[in-house]
Amino acid sequence: MKAKVHITLKQGVLDPQGKAIGHALGALGFDGIEDVRQGKYIEIEIAETDADAARSKVEDMCRKLLANMVIENYTVDIADPAAG
Amino acid sequence: MKAKVHITLKQGVLDPQGKAIGHALGALGFDGIEDVRQGKYIEIEIAETDADAARSKVEDMCRKLLANMVIENYTVDIADPAAG
Repeated sequence: MKAKVHITLKQGVLDPQGKAIGHALGALGFDGIEDVRQGKYIEIEIAETDADAARSKVEDMCRKLLANMVIENYTVDIADPAAG
Repeated sequence: MKAKVHITLKQGVLDPQGKAIGHALGALGFDGIEDVRQGKYIEIEIAETDADAARSKVEDMCRKLLANMVIENYTVDIADPAAG
């Protein structure tokens, strides 16, 4: 089963990487850029047939390793091709 | 209007960062991890009221700056709160 994880910075946390992207886009001639925020996207393929069990396992991974809970939020989507 | 961009490595391109995450999860005691792929997730807020125009602008940004088209794919989702 495949889990799609988004790790994003919490509201109010400065995002210098996003700012850099925004400036670079401006320098390339793109106008109207109001804000850019960069996060991480992680796809995890796990041997688990139950969607709820998979979700709880991946959320545990987020808390223990993938996300810095002080400054980051995570969301987990379980993409379930055919399997229960 | 907010655009959500996912940049992922193409199939077949080695992903050492994903492998490292997979190993770290294994070391933490998580079993059943079959594969981990890491990508980037970028949210761009642009001053554009037309969804199609916004999408084409953001796809242009992906080709010119955000994605390395040799090894990466991109997808653009336009999230449109109320505006046309």
